[in-house]
Amino acid sequence: MASLKTSILRRFQSTFTSKPIPSKTHFHAPIPDSAFPKGYVLTGIHAGVKKKAGVPDLGIILSTSPRPASAAACFTRNAFKAAPVVVSQQVLEKSQGRVRAVVVNSGCANAVTGKQGMEDAWAMVSATDALLEPVPQKNETMVMSTGVIGQNLPIQKILTGIASQSPKTPGNTSTLGSSFEAWELAARAFMTTDTFPKLRARTFSINGKEYRLAGMDKGAGMIHPNMGPPSGQLHATLLGCILTDAAVSPRSLQSALTYAVDRSFNSISVDGDMSTNDTILVLANGAAAEGAQEIDEKTDPASFDVFKQELTNFAIDLAKLVVRDGEGATKFVTVSVNGATSYEDAHKIASRISTSALVKTALYGEDANWGRILAATGSIPLATPLDPSRVSVSFIPTDGTVPLRLLVNGEPEKVNEARATEIISSEDLEIQVELGLGNESAKYWTCDFSYEYVRINGDYRT
Amino acid sequence: MASLKTSILRRFQSTFTSKPIPSKTHFHAPIPDSAFPKGYVLTGIHAGVKKKAGVPDLGIILSTSPRPASAAACFTRNAFKAAPVVVSQQVLEKSQGRVRAVVVNSGCANAVTGKQGMEDAWAMVSATDALLEPVPQKNETMVMSTGVIGQNLPIQKILTGIASQSPKTPGNTSTLGSSFEAWELAARAFMTTDTFPKLRARTFSINGKEYRLAGMDKGAGMIHPNMGPPSGQLHATLLGCILTDAAVSPRSLQSALTYAVDRSFNSISVDGDMSTNDTILVLANGAAAEGAQEIDEKTDPASFDVFKQELTNFAIDLAKLVVRDGEGATKFVTVSVNGATSYEDAHKIASRISTSALVKTALYGEDANWGRILAATGSIPLATPLDPSRVSVSFIPTDGTVPLRLLVNGEPEKVNEARATEIISSEDLEIQVELGLGNESAKYWTCDFSYEYVRINGDYRT
Repeated sequence: MASLKTSILRRFQSTFTSKPIPSKTHFHAPIPDSAFPKGYVLTGIHAGVKKKAGVPDLGIILSTSPRPASAAACFTRNAFKAAPVVVSQQVLEKSQGRVRAVVVNSGCANAVTGKQGMEDAWAMVSATDALLEPVPQKNETMVMSTGVIGQNLPIQKILTGIASQSPKTPGNTSTLGSSFEAWELAARAFMTTDTFPKLRARTFSINGKEYRLAGMDKGAGMIHPNMGPPSGQLHATLLGCILTDAAVSPRSLQSALTYAVDRSFNSISVDGDMSTNDTILVLANGAAAEGAQEIDEKTDPASFDVFKQELTNFAIDLAKLVVRDGEGATKFVTVSVNGATSYEDAHKIASRISTSALVKTALYGEDANWGRILAATGSIPLATPLDPSRVSVSFIPTDGTVPLRLLVNGEPEKVNEARATEIISSEDLEIQVELGLGNESAKYWTCDFSYEYVRINGDYRT
Repeated sequence: MASLKTSILRRFQSTFTSKPIPSKTHFHAPIPDSAFPKGYVLTGIHAGVKKKAGVPDLGIILSTSPRPASAAACFTRNAFKAAPVVVSQQVLEKSQGRVRAVVVNSGCANAVTGKQGMEDAWAMVSATDALLEPVPQKNETMVMSTGVIGQNLPIQKILTGIASQSPKTPGNTSTLGSSFEAWELAARAFMTTDTFPKLRARTFSINGKEYRLAGMDKGAGMIHPNMGPPSGQLHATLLGCILTDAAVSPRSLQSALTYAVDRSFNSISVDGDMSTNDTILVLANGAAAEGAQEIDEKTDPASFDVFKQELTNFAIDLAKLVVRDGEGATKFVTVSVNGATSYEDAHKIASRISTSALVKTALYGEDANWGRILAATGSIPLATPLDPSRVSVSFIPTDGTVPLRLLVNGEPEKVNEARATEIISSEDLEIQVELGLGNESAKYWTCDFSYEYVRINGDYRT
């Protein structure tokens, strides 16, 4: 009997041969020093949070621009906000959105660590404030942590590491710099189970004037961010830091970031689990043109719109890198939902498909089991109920060949299984769902669910 | 570097040694014929929906009681309702809650099969109606299907199989009966990836009069039901059929079932994916006492409450069997959320913890990574926001030994890792979350996430 056969298999089969996980390291490549924003020095050092010697686990970013940089952030909406999330939020308030530094550690999330955790996060802020020149100010540093939840930081090691970067420290070993190597070290300090440092830069211009954006992020698991501006209730471990040498007012910087995060970091999923630490920061130090007027949504909407779109596209690039490096991922899948009556409905469905264990294991198995896509699509309540007779589903190959229609207006197509398998076997793939109800659409980026995901997360702490 | 190490592992590690999946077959045992409700004949035969010869894939249940049985059902709320779900709902309406038969097939879900699917489901109803004695009536059969989505039924094979059970068919090979063997065959006809038939019976009494309940269900994957009464918008593949020889009015039978399903089948999860077919049916034929008055919520609330509670406890037993047999499951985990201000909030949190990929992989890895439980708990919006300083989390061993407190009022305990690992290493385990906000609580039943789950669902159709 099939059931008996399954039973025997499940009891005695004890080894699996997995597909090789494609190397992702080619997604990291050298960037010319000239492409990075002006007025920042960075480094990443081994402070000892992680056991293995030499692994960067502490990152420091300082703005050297005479005026404090405008700062904005989106934080996790998880009810259990990690100490660094609470502290960074307070720093933003106290500094009225003007800061000069960012400090980040990997290896320990400083989350659910009670009062000690808050003291430790503040100690990291003060120690980094002390590095600032010419005149150190209080509360000019934002702090981020990522790693295991529920354990306290080895705070003395971290403080010693921060102090080692101060010219005032006798025999200091400061490695702060502005070269590609310095940016790369900082990016490495963000990494946990990431297999490559996530670092990108781009140049854009407004009214003929050139500005630069650069940023780094991390995250491979516990990735299903839901981040809002500081005012919002907090939720989401994805960390990201975006730096620009444009001058933007704090209020407008937050407005642009909130818009960008909804369409980038809040539209990716690796495993559907929200972290207590997710944080995306932006600093705009105006170093590209000292004394230039700040870009502002109200006074110069045209320039602001250019900046907002550049920031959004850049954030999408950084967000995709996290999915590309998803724990155990062998595929990079774009889920597009079109024809909705609202962005929210489209986004909800794209999110549900992107987090379905059955869809993700079928992708890993390269089984074109599109019925699971339908089941996921229909499984959530929406503002406008679905009309099954209007729903269509297609696989879109990324090699430019013709799409494969699986379901058209609720009726299954005679699917060419060979073609379906061909498309689903490629590393990149797009699943397109058309609702036929309206003109709103949303995109989500996800990966498959592999043996390696289970292995990595079955023994993360050991 | 850790990241490099991970990278190498993830690129080249290609085999895994999994823990042996414990056999679940001892959860199926013989039941005395006398324990089954009176007035039903059943069978399970191989009609040819499944490839493998001899595997039951068609189940038939007939009530032989002179009067039609009262019927009630809860159906999936998925927007893509499978044809048998739509048809069974219409049968309930047309028959005004009075039916005499149930027909079920496994191997093909007849879901997302368009017009042909509806015709096929109706054909199964008519063919089974024709088996009813003494006088066949139209629309007295409820139909259920489970298996692959998006494929049409081999309807001729199914109709031939149904007809083979009719005494009128020349050379018929009817195997309909009322012995344990007949009930077991019917239960086997429900199975897909189940490793054992799920069949239970219990006797209860109201006012000194004895009644019997018996039922069967199936489901091992795509298990995260959300079922409502026919009136409700439809969602959920879990199939279940509960039969009793008590006499209960259709309206009261539905009321009791809706209450029971919310606290049983709607409180289990294997993989968080809702099916298009989930259906739980109840038939009450009154055969225990022909002509006896029907139990009714309005006219005899005391008797009704006894029946409702018996039905609920019985439904919980059947629901737990599905989790126990979850695809690739090595553990049976009870998630209890207490101290909520509403059942809905408690149920939402229990559901989120029970579906967290990170919690489930940690359970498989027997890693007491309780921080993931916290992250899941805090990740969903609630009617009453959480106060982290009031939240406590404990592991409750099922061997009666002392519970292990992990977090107390938001502060982590110094956890005895050895003890935590000891508890998490047992096959059965309870995770208890105390919110400290109110007096409402909810329970959820889930399993772990293993290599086998990925294997089973990576090639379900092949």
